[in-house]
Amino acid sequence: MENSLLKNVKGTKDFMPQEQMLRNRIRRTLEEVFEAYGCKPLETPMLSSYELLASKYGGGAEILKEVYQLSDQGERELALRYDLTVPLAKVVGMNPEMRLPFKRYEIGKVFRDGPVKPGRFREFVQCDVDIVGASSMLAEAELISMAFAAFERLDLDVYIEVNNRKLLSGILQELGVPEDRAGDVMLSLDKLEKIGIKGVLEDLRERGVEDTLIEAVGGFLQEGEATLARLEERFSSELVQEGVQELKQLFAYLQGSQVTGEVRFQPFLARGLGIYTGTVYEIFLQDQSIPSSIGSGGRYDRIIGQFLGDGREYPAVGISFGLDVILTALTLKPLEINERSADLLVVPMGTEALSLGLANRLRLAGIKTELELSGRKLKKALDYANKEQIPLVLIYGENEVEKGAVVLRDMKKGDERTVPLALLEQQIADAITNL
Amino acid sequence: MENSLLKNVKGTKDFMPQEQMLRNRIRRTLEEVFEAYGCKPLETPMLSSYELLASKYGGGAEILKEVYQLSDQGERELALRYDLTVPLAKVVGMNPEMRLPFKRYEIGKVFRDGPVKPGRFREFVQCDVDIVGASSMLAEAELISMAFAAFERLDLDVYIEVNNRKLLSGILQELGVPEDRAGDVMLSLDKLEKIGIKGVLEDLRERGVEDTLIEAVGGFLQEGEATLARLEERFSSELVQEGVQELKQLFAYLQGSQVTGEVRFQPFLARGLGIYTGTVYEIFLQDQSIPSSIGSGGRYDRIIGQFLGDGREYPAVGISFGLDVILTALTLKPLEINERSADLLVVPMGTEALSLGLANRLRLAGIKTELELSGRKLKKALDYANKEQIPLVLIYGENEVEKGAVVLRDMKKGDERTVPLALLEQQIADAITNL
Repeated sequence: MENSLLKNVKGTKDFMPQEQMLRNRIRRTLEEVFEAYGCKPLETPMLSSYELLASKYGGGAEILKEVYQLSDQGERELALRYDLTVPLAKVVGMNPEMRLPFKRYEIGKVFRDGPVKPGRFREFVQCDVDIVGASSMLAEAELISMAFAAFERLDLDVYIEVNNRKLLSGILQELGVPEDRAGDVMLSLDKLEKIGIKGVLEDLRERGVEDTLIEAVGGFLQEGEATLARLEERFSSELVQEGVQELKQLFAYLQGSQVTGEVRFQPFLARGLGIYTGTVYEIFLQDQSIPSSIGSGGRYDRIIGQFLGDGREYPAVGISFGLDVILTALTLKPLEINERSADLLVVPMGTEALSLGLANRLRLAGIKTELELSGRKLKKALDYANKEQIPLVLIYGENEVEKGAVVLRDMKKGDERTVPLALLEQQIADAITNL
Repeated sequence: MENSLLKNVKGTKDFMPQEQMLRNRIRRTLEEVFEAYGCKPLETPMLSSYELLASKYGGGAEILKEVYQLSDQGERELALRYDLTVPLAKVVGMNPEMRLPFKRYEIGKVFRDGPVKPGRFREFVQCDVDIVGASSMLAEAELISMAFAAFERLDLDVYIEVNNRKLLSGILQELGVPEDRAGDVMLSLDKLEKIGIKGVLEDLRERGVEDTLIEAVGGFLQEGEATLARLEERFSSELVQEGVQELKQLFAYLQGSQVTGEVRFQPFLARGLGIYTGTVYEIFLQDQSIPSSIGSGGRYDRIIGQFLGDGREYPAVGISFGLDVILTALTLKPLEINERSADLLVVPMGTEALSLGLANRLRLAGIKTELELSGRKLKKALDYANKEQIPLVLIYGENEVEKGAVVLRDMKKGDERTVPLALLEQQIADAITNL
C-alpha cells in the first residue's frame, strides 16, 4: 500500500493502549458515579436525518456549518450528530409515555467538521447527564454534587463557577443594555477576571458598544465586588430577583448536600450558548493546569419544548464532561499514572498446553494474565515484561511440572521463588497486593 | 416540529435504558474478560479516508457498496469505517516500532449501508479481539478459551465449531474442484447439517456445478462421517496434512486449557469471508434460540501484510462478538433479567437539602440512590418506585429529622421500619443483600 494512506483523517487520532486504558478508567468512573446517582444510560444513533439537525434549535446556523452530511443508498439526506442533546430531545418527543423526570446519561462520539486545535478533534467523546422534567433547583444541586463526586473519584481537584442567566440578563436590562447588545456585553464581562475593569471597557469599545452603555457598565463595575447580597439590593427587577432567589435556593441545597467541593458565585459567567435559561456552571481545575473549563452545563427550560413544538413544557438541566480534556488533566498530573495491561506474564518452557491451563486458572481468579504466545526465550520474555511494565513473571518448564510447582519472578526486586501449584492463586494475589 | 422528523434513520435505533443497562453489562463483562486475558484496548477513529477503505483488502468490492461516503470542509473524501480490522491494520502499519504479538481489543461502532433485517442494523457495535504477530496455534487456543470464559460469565451456554481452511481447501483440491468453483462448493457443503447429502448435491446442481464434480463430492460424502482421523488417512496432499496438524495442535492446546466448553470439529465450516487462511470458528448457543452464530473468527495470516505491502509478514488471528446478538440471546432467556437503575429512592418531605446530603452519603457507600426531584407526594413517589422496580424507598420528613432517623420501606414486602441515621448505610446494604 502507498505509505500516504497510512495516516489518520484530519481531526482524528488513534488512542493507543496506554492512553486508552486511562480513557476506559475515566469512562467507567463516570458511569459508576452517574449510576450511583440513579442516572439511566441511553444510546442514540450517530446517524441522524439532516432535517432533524437543521430544524429549529439553539445551536442555529453556526453549528450547521460543522455538520458532516452524507446520504444512504436510498438517497436519504443524513448527517452525523454534533451533540447528544438533539438526540435526547428526539427520544423525549418519540416517547410521550415516558415518565418524567427522565435522568439519563450518554457517553458517545459526536462529530464536528470545525477548526482543529491541540486537544480539539473532529470526532470526540462527550459524556452528558441531563434531567428532563424537573424544575426544582434540586436538579442542578444533584448534578453539581455528582460532578464533585466524579472528580474526587478521578483524583482531580476542581472548583465550580456558578451563575444564573436570569440574574445576568436582568442586570444588563437594568443597566439599560438593549437586547441586541446583551450578547456582546456578556462576552466582555465574562473576561473581567482576566482583563480587569479597564480591559472590559476597552473590549466593549472595540465591539462598538455605545459610550452611554459603556459608562453605565463601568459605573456598575466600580461600585465594588458583585456579591449576591449586593446585587439583590442594587437591582430590583423581577428577573434579577428571580435569579437571586434561584441561586440562594441552589446554594442552600448545596450546603445540605454534604459535598465538600468549592462553589464560586461568578455573576458574569455567561456560557456561550444561547440556550440557557437559568443556572449555568463551569468546572475548572484548582491547579489551573488546563486554563479552560473541563466540564460545564446549565438549565435550558425552553429548548426541548421549542424543538418538539408539542405545546408541553420540558424544564431541563444538564452537565457535560469532555473525556479527552479529563484525559489531558490526568496526564498532566505530576505523579505518573501507569495503567498496566497485565499483572503477570506466563512463560511456557516447552509446556504450552499446560501453561494455557494455568493461565486460564489465574484469569478465573481475577489475575490479569498474559501468556507468552510467540515462543520467546526466557531472556527475551523478561525483557518484554520489563518494557510492558508487567510486574510478575511465571516460568513453567518441565522441571516445574514434575515438581508440581512454578517459578515466580518479581520483576522489580529481581528475585525468583518456587511456588507450589496448590498455593498459586493466593501467593500471586499476595504478591500483587505487595507490589 | 413536524412529527415526521421524530423518527430514527432507517437501520438505526435508540437503546432505551432497560436495554442499554443490559448492553453496558455485556460490554463491561467482555472488557473484563478481555483484560483478564492480557488484551489491550485500542480506539480508532470512525472517520476514515475513503481511499484507505477502498485499497486492496479481502472485503473487496462487495463491502465497498455498503460504505457510507462523505467529505469534510477541506473536500477530503472520507468514509465511515465498516469494520475494526482495516483500522487495526492501519495502526500496525503506522507504528512499525510496535512490539508484536500485539493483542488488542476494540469495542466500537461500525457502519454498513446494507440491507436491514430484524437484528441487523446499519450502525452497530462490534467487539473484536485480534492477535497480530503470533503464528502459534496457542493464539487461537487463547481466543477460544476467552470466548468460553466470556459466555460463561454472561451465563450463556455455547459450543464452538472449529475448522481449518487449509484442510477444507485441500480436500476440495483433491476431489478435483477447480479454484474458481471452490467458493460455490464450500457454500453448499456448509449447509450439510441442515439439508443433508441429497440437499447439498441439489444445491450444487442449482449453482451450475459440473456433474463430474458433484459426483466426486457426493461420493466423498457417502464414505461416512468425516472425522479428523479419517480425513488424515483419506487425503494425502500437503495442504490437507498441514490443516490436520494445525487442528490436532489446537485441540491439544484446548485440552490443556482446562476450559470446559464444547468444541466441535466441523470439517465443512467455511466462513463467508475469503480472508481466512487457517483456523476458522463460529460460536453457537446450545439451546439454538438464535439459529445463526453469535460470534466468530479465524486466522488471516496474509491480509495485513498484503494490505500494508511492506514485505513483512503479519500472522494474525481474531475473534469478533456482536453486542446486539448477545443482547438478543440474553433477552430470549426464560428467566427475567432486570437491571435496575437504582437500589433506593429517597423521598424528601420538606427536607430537600438534608435529603440531598443523605442521598450523597449513601452514594458514597456504593448504594445506587435516586433522589425524588419533582416534588411528588409520597403515594405518587411509591408508585414511581414500583414502576421503576426500585426495591427500597427512604422517607425523610421533619419528624424523622427530629428523631435522627429515617423510614425505610421495602417495596416488595410492603413493610416500613425506622432506621437511625447512624446505622443507615449498614442496614440499607443488608436490605439490598436480602432482596
